[in-house]
Amino acid sequence: MNAEKIPDIIIGRLPIYLRALQRMAERGMVTTSSQELGEHVGISAAQIRKDISQFGEFGKQGTGYSITFLIEKLKEILKVNRIWDVALVGAGDVGHALARYQGFTNRGFRIVQVFDNDRAKVGQRIGEFVVEDAANVDEKIRSAGVKIAMLTVPATSAQEVADALVRGGVKAILNYAPISLNVPKSVHVQYLDPATHLQRMTFYL
Amino acid sequence: MNAEKIPDIIIGRLPIYLRALQRMAERGMVTTSSQELGEHVGISAAQIRKDISQFGEFGKQGTGYSITFLIEKLKEILKVNRIWDVALVGAGDVGHALARYQGFTNRGFRIVQVFDNDRAKVGQRIGEFVVEDAANVDEKIRSAGVKIAMLTVPATSAQEVADALVRGGVKAILNYAPISLNVPKSVHVQYLDPATHLQRMTFYL
Repeated sequence: MNAEKIPDIIIGRLPIYLRALQRMAERGMVTTSSQELGEHVGISAAQIRKDISQFGEFGKQGTGYSITFLIEKLKEILKVNRIWDVALVGAGDVGHALARYQGFTNRGFRIVQVFDNDRAKVGQRIGEFVVEDAANVDEKIRSAGVKIAMLTVPATSAQEVADALVRGGVKAILNYAPISLNVPKSVHVQYLDPATHLQRMTFYL
Repeated sequence: MNAEKIPDIIIGRLPIYLRALQRMAERGMVTTSSQELGEHVGISAAQIRKDISQFGEFGKQGTGYSITFLIEKLKEILKVNRIWDVALVGAGDVGHALARYQGFTNRGFRIVQVFDNDRAKVGQRIGEFVVEDAANVDEKIRSAGVKIAMLTVPATSAQEVADALVRGGVKAILNYAPISLNVPKSVHVQYLDPATHLQRMTFYL
C-alpha cells in the first residue's frame, strides 16, 4: 500500500466504516457484508468493497467480513491501533465539552493537556484536567511530544495559536474556530465549524 | 443556475469563501482578488474563479471582487440571506456549548428550541433557552415550522431522535452523535464527530 496513491476521499470514508463496525461489535455481531455495512453508513456496497480492497483482501466471497478482523485492519491503516496524545487549546464552552467527552479513548485518542491564554481560566479544573497557561504552548507541546491538537479558541486568535502549535511540532489540528488556517503542507487540518456545515445544507433547502 | 447540476464539492467550498469574505469585511476591506481570497482559504485562485463562475459573473477582470457584493451573492446562493430557525436536541455538554455560541446569527441561523429527553434537564435554563421535553419533539418542531436541527444526543438514541425530527419536517440535520443516520434522501445530514475527523488525519502521520 502506498499512502500517497490512495485518494483522500477514500481515507475520509474509512473512519465511518470503522465507527459502524465498532458499533456492530458492541452489539455482539461477528460478521457483516458490504451490503449490510452499506445500509448502516449510507454508502453503496460496491463503493465499500472498492474502498477496502485498496488496502488488501479483507473479506471472503460469500461469507463477508469478520468484524473484529476488519476493525483491526482499519485501525492499522488509520494508525489508531494505538492511543494518540492530544492537546486541547481553548478552555471555553466547546473546550469544556471536548475535555469531558468520553468517546475518544476507544477510537485512538486521549486529551493530555488543556491550555488557555485567559489568566482567569488557568488553574481551573475541567474534568480531570487543570487548565495550563497557553504562553509557551509550543515548548510545552514539544516537550510532551504531542503531535495532534484541538483548537477551540476564538477566530481572532486561532491563526496565532496554530502557528505556535506548528512550532511545537503538531502535525494535525482539529480546528473548531470559524477561520481557515494557514499552515505548512506537512500539517493536516480538519474543520468543525457548525455554521459552515449548516450553510452547506441550506443550499439544498 | 441549476442547483442539481452544481457538484456538491463546490457547494461545500462556498461557505468557506463566505466566511473568509465576512472576516475581510469586518477588517474594513472593500475589494479582493481570487488570488488573495485563495491565500486566506488555502484554495487556488483558479479553483475559486471556476467555483464562483458557476453562479454568474461576480468579479471584474483586473479589479477583482467587491467584497460586500460577493458576500451578498454567496448568501443568496447558500440561502443564508435570511435567518433560519434551528432546533437543538440534546442538552449535554455539546448542546450547552452550541446553545451559548454567539457565532450563528451573522451566518444565517438562530437556535429557537432546545430539547432533551432527560427529565432532570427539562426546565433547566441554558443561556437564553429553557430545555423542553423531547417527547413529541416531532409535533413541536412541526408546529414551530423548524426545518433544521442540531443533534447532540448520545449515539444510542440518535437514530430514534432523527426519525422524530424527520417526522416533524426537518430537512437538514447537523449530527454531532458518532453514528451514521438513516434518513430519507430528501433530508440532508452533515457530521461533526471529532474522532472521525481525527482518524482521517492520523492516516497521514
